Amino acid sequence: MKIGVFDSGIGGLTVVKSLLEHQLFEEIIYFGDTARVPYGSKDKNTIIRYAIEAVEFFKNFELDMIIVACNTVSAYALDEMRESASCPVIGVVEAGVLATSNAVKNIEDNILVIGTNATVKSKAYENGLKEQGFHKLQTKATPLFVPLVEEEIFHGEILDATLKHYFEHVTHPQAVILGCTHFPLLSETLQQYFGSETMLIHSGDAIVEYLEQEFKFSQKYENPVVKFFASENPEALRKIAKKWLDV
Amino acid sequence: MKIGVFDSGIGGLTVVKSLLEHQLFEEIIYFGDTARVPYGSKDKNTIIRYAIEAVEFFKNFELDMIIVACNTVSAYALDEMRESASCPVIGVVEAGVLATSNAVKNIEDNILVIGTNATVKSKAYENGLKEQGFHKLQTKATPLFVPLVEEEIFHGEILDATLKHYFEHVTHPQAVILGCTHFPLLSETLQQYFGSETMLIHSGDAIVEYLEQEFKFSQKYENPVVKFFASENPEALRKIAKKWLDV
Repeated sequence: MKIGVFDSGIGGLTVVKSLLEHQLFEEIIYFGDTARVPYGSKDKNTIIRYAIEAVEFFKNFELDMIIVACNTVSAYALDEMRESASCPVIGVVEAGVLATSNAVKNIEDNILVIGTNATVKSKAYENGLKEQGFHKLQTKATPLFVPLVEEEIFHGEILDATLKHYFEHVTHPQAVILGCTHFPLLSETLQQYFGSETMLIHSGDAIVEYLEQEFKFSQKYENPVVKFFASENPEALRKIAKKWLDV
Repeated sequence: MKIGVFDSGIGGLTVVKSLLEHQLFEEIIYFGDTARVPYGSKDKNTIIRYAIEAVEFFKNFELDMIIVACNTVSAYALDEMRESASCPVIGVVEAGVLATSNAVKNIEDNILVIGTNATVKSKAYENGLKEQGFHKLQTKATPLFVPLVEEEIFHGEILDATLKHYFEHVTHPQAVILGCTHFPLLSETLQQYFGSETMLIHSGDAIVEYLEQEFKFSQKYENPVVKFFASENPEALRKIAKKWLDV
């Protein structure tokens, strides 16, 4: 199995990390649109246009599947990508909804979805969770988390003030969907803030669960290979990948 | 006089505000590359490529001058834009250096330059200021200020913690160059933080000073017209312009 992983930038590496740990693929072609990142503040039509261009890029490889690691793209452009692609295209939103409904046993539990402005505005998670019967849903756009992660600010005063700013008036959640690939890097701080009882739903783990459950993936490949591509400065992407993934 | 004003996004509106107040032009064509913003975290070659594309866009209008409102573009791509353009191209960095040397009378004064990662890395302001004889220079990349302004966070705990994070170890400056078009929106808070004796150098006012001093602009045009263009969602740009500029 050879797959493509698409993200607006470097955040999708958190999804690659989960895929590598579970050895579900022989070869991963990662493409980050670093020249036009971020997508989370951009317009629906622009996001769709960029996503279709990513499908065209992936046509250079003979792929068995495309995984959309970016929540914003998964929320807006999955149908259009599927129309253009000649292989299955799956996204982190549907995977996150499945993982949440597996993990949260009580439909009366409070679920909080956090993400970029675009992801939250799309209501993609909300609609998916409602279909599963959940109805105590809160959503909160937390766009500052992205530049904080990119500045490698994972704890401290700025982050504490930002947490307070976003979550002061949020009802205590039993589960939080980390609806942006950058957010798993804040897991420790978020877990501390919400308490150890609150479950954090991570896109990378959700994708693995989705593939195993919906696509019956079970074969393991030793020594999976990852190749990195970027629309600008692939060298910088490879350096970060080395640091985060040890590849 | 009909000019183009180029910025990576909406930040350049702070420069348009100064231009309108001083009525130096009959017509302003504003172009914001909102589909690919921000530039400040991107690679030199990408910034140059995007800047040359902006010159191509401006060729649709018969312009007498292009003003580059974006500090990052001014720092990296001015020469390349001049090669492509058939009218003069001026940037906020050279204007900011002139405004600083007009305002700071003592070359022993401490000057602090703040900007995006790319602008600070370019050393464009530093090199310009050194040529003017200044030698007590500090530079600090303050990239978090951009998303804070875009979230309309102009004061409060997050900003206080961010100011401390960036400036705790900075020697008290007599002048601060606001080397990013977003930063004038934080003027009040920065002035409070550094104290009323510290001069803040603003790109918009600097451009006006530069045009009057170097290009001998003196004619005033009543009722200047501004037209707004964007690479995505121009409607959103026009709304923000209405709010910020009252046009």
